[in-house]
Amino acid sequence: MQVLRTANELRRWSRSARVAGGATIGLVPTMGALHAGHASLMRAARAACTHVAVSLFVNPTQFGINEDFTRYPRAFEADCALAEAEGADVLFAPAVEELYPNGTNSTFVEVPGLSERLDGASRPGHFRGVTTVVTKLFAVAEPDRAYFGQKDAAQVAVLRRMIADLNLATEIVACPIVRDADGLALSSRNAYLTKADRTHALILSRTIRHVEFIVKEGERRASMLLAVARAALAVEPEVRVDYIALVDWATLEPVDMAVPGTLFAVAALVGDTRLIDNTVLS
Amino acid sequence: MQVLRTANELRRWSRSARVAGGATIGLVPTMGALHAGHASLMRAARAACTHVAVSLFVNPTQFGINEDFTRYPRAFEADCALAEAEGADVLFAPAVEELYPNGTNSTFVEVPGLSERLDGASRPGHFRGVTTVVTKLFAVAEPDRAYFGQKDAAQVAVLRRMIADLNLATEIVACPIVRDADGLALSSRNAYLTKADRTHALILSRTIRHVEFIVKEGERRASMLLAVARAALAVEPEVRVDYIALVDWATLEPVDMAVPGTLFAVAALVGDTRLIDNTVLS
Repeated sequence: MQVLRTANELRRWSRSARVAGGATIGLVPTMGALHAGHASLMRAARAACTHVAVSLFVNPTQFGINEDFTRYPRAFEADCALAEAEGADVLFAPAVEELYPNGTNSTFVEVPGLSERLDGASRPGHFRGVTTVVTKLFAVAEPDRAYFGQKDAAQVAVLRRMIADLNLATEIVACPIVRDADGLALSSRNAYLTKADRTHALILSRTIRHVEFIVKEGERRASMLLAVARAALAVEPEVRVDYIALVDWATLEPVDMAVPGTLFAVAALVGDTRLIDNTVLS
Repeated sequence: MQVLRTANELRRWSRSARVAGGATIGLVPTMGALHAGHASLMRAARAACTHVAVSLFVNPTQFGINEDFTRYPRAFEADCALAEAEGADVLFAPAVEELYPNGTNSTFVEVPGLSERLDGASRPGHFRGVTTVVTKLFAVAEPDRAYFGQKDAAQVAVLRRMIADLNLATEIVACPIVRDADGLALSSRNAYLTKADRTHALILSRTIRHVEFIVKEGERRASMLLAVARAALAVEPEVRVDYIALVDWATLEPVDMAVPGTLFAVAALVGDTRLIDNTVLS
């Protein structure tokens, strides 16, 4: 596995891959601190693409002023080992100055509407940072497919909309949430949790499972599902709910009735750590 | 010359060109109503690229609410003939719905700062529309080079900045202003001018030549050059000045002294028609 530091190297790699003909280029954009969720994205890319690039970039523009950009976990050596083990061909790990040569207040890509919903409502500017950096990564890697975790379900919706609106050539593949044995959705931010936090945090996945269960039992009214979820989360007063949402996964607009494909999503603060979890209902 | 109506057709054309190897793809983005200025862009593209696409799209998002989107001149048959005569391989002429399937208030690309200077100051939102549609055209045509007229000098600066910021793979080639025999810079909007307007409009190019002359004579102070230009334009009271600017062409920021490469630019209303003209000083 080659480690590339500059945008030009990554573009050269991608373009040489195309010259041979028949290449399918997969990109797995990450912020590093890789875990089994990221590994599953790489495995999906490896299975479907002839060429796989993993990017590792803690993108400053998607963090709010008071968020955890500086303390976000970084683990370059371990990340390299994991990406190599999962068969990545290249690891793209640029410096901030490489992707933002004119500073971070430069050109940006904005998806009005969608980017202010769910996490966008709680984290102003977050999705603008995401859409901007993903546009840049796509411009450089020129991937056919890009792999993202369904855990960031709103991000997937925003990126799909951006791709359609800007006529980009990349398809988003959303991969299932990977969970620890106790049900907690994997996240690099789980590293922030104290032992007590972690116990409290389990109410998120329990609530998800509970909502899935009552939908399977036949309850599809949003008012009921949201009330049940609110009550379930209230069992754990240490967990401060940010949002509980039942929305169309493409538009992120609230729905009155859950149908197959509807997104049920929660976000909450556990201690100082903001966690999210969701399920796409059947 | 093939006429293509969909983004997918244009991307297929561009990608097949690449498969052969050694392709250099040139794009000439236009709003149609083609004139000798556009022809010079196509000729430059034809001379430097193996494959040349001309796009013809009156982009609604770069027009203000009270601007001339609906009455902007359209001349599809003549445009086809000109592009074909200049050796374009394909003409891309999409419907508005093809490039804005989700409506015109969808994802946009913004270059803060630069996009509010010169024409951006007088035409709020104009450059946001330009950067958005050009991002889309680049995403579809995947050109190595894109050809624009230096007449829209601020547009060239905004696009170059956007390309650098978003790590896009396309290089902007700015081609010299083409003028009528009387000195008037060619523009599709010249069709709006009455005979009297047209006579008044000549003061723009005369002022440009006058400023070039006194720079050549040794005067480089911005204060003097701008005062001289203001006085020259005042000779024609029918011409209402929008801006007179002496700026760095990359940043569009005012300079105190003209140096080789400094942009001197004017914009003015002649009758109901907004005209622009400029020169890059030596």
